[in-house]
Amino acid sequence: MTAKWYQQSGTDGDVVVSTRVRFARNLNHLPFPAGMTAEQREEVIGQIFEAFPQDGSGAFQCIRMTELSEWDALSMVERHLISPNFTAHPEGEALLLSPDESVSVMIGEEDHVRIQAMHAGLALDEAFTAANCWDDFLDARLHFAFDDRLGYLTQCPTNLGTGMRASVMLHLPALQEKGVIQQLANTVSKLGLTIRGMYGEGSRSEGAMYQLSNQVTLGITEQEAIENLKSIVGQIVKEERGYREQLRETPALEDRVYRSLGILQNARLLSGKEFMSLISHVRMGAAMNILTSVDLNGISHLMVDAQPAALMQQAGCELDPAERDKRRAALVRERLQ
Amino acid sequence: MTAKWYQQSGTDGDVVVSTRVRFARNLNHLPFPAGMTAEQREEVIGQIFEAFPQDGSGAFQCIRMTELSEWDALSMVERHLISPNFTAHPEGEALLLSPDESVSVMIGEEDHVRIQAMHAGLALDEAFTAANCWDDFLDARLHFAFDDRLGYLTQCPTNLGTGMRASVMLHLPALQEKGVIQQLANTVSKLGLTIRGMYGEGSRSEGAMYQLSNQVTLGITEQEAIENLKSIVGQIVKEERGYREQLRETPALEDRVYRSLGILQNARLLSGKEFMSLISHVRMGAAMNILTSVDLNGISHLMVDAQPAALMQQAGCELDPAERDKRRAALVRERLQ
Repeated sequence: MTAKWYQQSGTDGDVVVSTRVRFARNLNHLPFPAGMTAEQREEVIGQIFEAFPQDGSGAFQCIRMTELSEWDALSMVERHLISPNFTAHPEGEALLLSPDESVSVMIGEEDHVRIQAMHAGLALDEAFTAANCWDDFLDARLHFAFDDRLGYLTQCPTNLGTGMRASVMLHLPALQEKGVIQQLANTVSKLGLTIRGMYGEGSRSEGAMYQLSNQVTLGITEQEAIENLKSIVGQIVKEERGYREQLRETPALEDRVYRSLGILQNARLLSGKEFMSLISHVRMGAAMNILTSVDLNGISHLMVDAQPAALMQQAGCELDPAERDKRRAALVRERLQ
Repeated sequence: MTAKWYQQSGTDGDVVVSTRVRFARNLNHLPFPAGMTAEQREEVIGQIFEAFPQDGSGAFQCIRMTELSEWDALSMVERHLISPNFTAHPEGEALLLSPDESVSVMIGEEDHVRIQAMHAGLALDEAFTAANCWDDFLDARLHFAFDDRLGYLTQCPTNLGTGMRASVMLHLPALQEKGVIQQLANTVSKLGLTIRGMYGEGSRSEGAMYQLSNQVTLGITEQEAIENLKSIVGQIVKEERGYREQLRETPALEDRVYRSLGILQNARLLSGKEFMSLISHVRMGAAMNILTSVDLNGISHLMVDAQPAALMQQAGCELDPAERDKRRAALVRERLQ
């Protein structure tokens, strides 16, 4: 089985969990998805499925969202392969997914096409290149709606222009503990960026995970947006590391890291919220070499597998919250022994 | 080194931690300690030291309380060898201690002599026999104050008569969780018994440890008092076990037991209060065979060694609370690996 991007850690993995670049694109001969008929939706799906390589080792999976169980779809949200919105009305929606799940194409979301490339750690250039490659590939075959003055046309004006959203998932336990996240959010917003919870807009941060992404898509090139994000991520990484070293001086840090590991290795019931809070301490401990028995890859892998829908997917059935807490605890114990 | 009574577990050790029987006695030719001169105090100490065997394998240690460091004295309180009062004014006070620390004689406490015999688990007959043996031994040599109508004369009228206090240390986590300890206290008081915290009168319960002892010393024989206590302990043990079995049905119990063990095995800082609360869960888990890697003897031993004065005794110096919390955590980790 190909190792998935979310089962790994990458560059600056102590702070940067993963990187994502996505392009919003629309075919130029059809209305935006909100105004499409069922037939037109099928037409878009058909055209895009046809364009993609479907044989050989690089073959994409073609998935109609109506074919997925609820937990299969939700577990894709947990893995950041699709947006939460995409699971609400599966009719006329489809997904293309590369074997290592690092490239996904949502068809019939807010725009006709959302091309997404993901990577472990800080890898803005790599993710941009991958997304860009599939964008060029599709553009050559399908002709995306483009205006010389406005750039790529999108349903929502906030995507107009480059249609690109580049984001990094940051683990910021030390900055969170210092209580400076709100201040950071204010600062980055002045620099054309936004910081959000783990599952994007409107979601809360769990386990000190924050998504930092570019806000501006108009009047700026993709490369400029990427460089801007890169430079600010660099500063945040430096600050987070600095605060971590301050915390290292206190005996409370080591205590908290080991207690969190001890609870995770022993609990028989673990809510999702408690799991995220404990694994956050363990992740910081591993990143700071306080814990040497746990590695960041394993933690990344576990953070995906311990989410509610992933647990149901593994069980192959619906699970109530109490049953999930039991199975989550069992999974975590097994992985962290 | 002789294994000490408090490093072991005994009969009904799942609920009964230890048993103690003590006699309050006074020499008939001297005033009670509160009214004695320094010379008279020395006279009592001298007479009693002289009476006790001081050679051979059964030799008692003769300790003048003024010779002890503060933490040596306090660690004896923690081991229940002496009363908290006994450490406050060490002048004119002395202690006789058997090699396994199961028999101790406080000289110059509230009464001239307090003979105490201790035993792991439920062992009222054994403790009574041991205390009684040393009582007879001393009475034959020193002649204790005795009135045909009142029995043994003591400073405090609550000890008049038999001068005997028999007590058992009970671990009652399930009854405590059910919130029925106050109700139990009301019931036993009608039966001539009293239930108190871990270190006797006025002390709070830590780690669900409760001391149950006879209140009545007048108009009752020692044997009657012991039988009464025995029968009530039997009922409490049965109730505690019953509630534990009810708790076993809930997944929360196993979770709590394992989490507590996980924290104890991993924490780098442990306050005395948190330690007692966690080790209480672990003790219940071990007693119920949920945990098989930990035994009750080891827990008894650890509960003594992790107390504040014991930690200072091991370190050989005064320790501030933060330093104790660190050393306690290190000791607990080492013992519970």
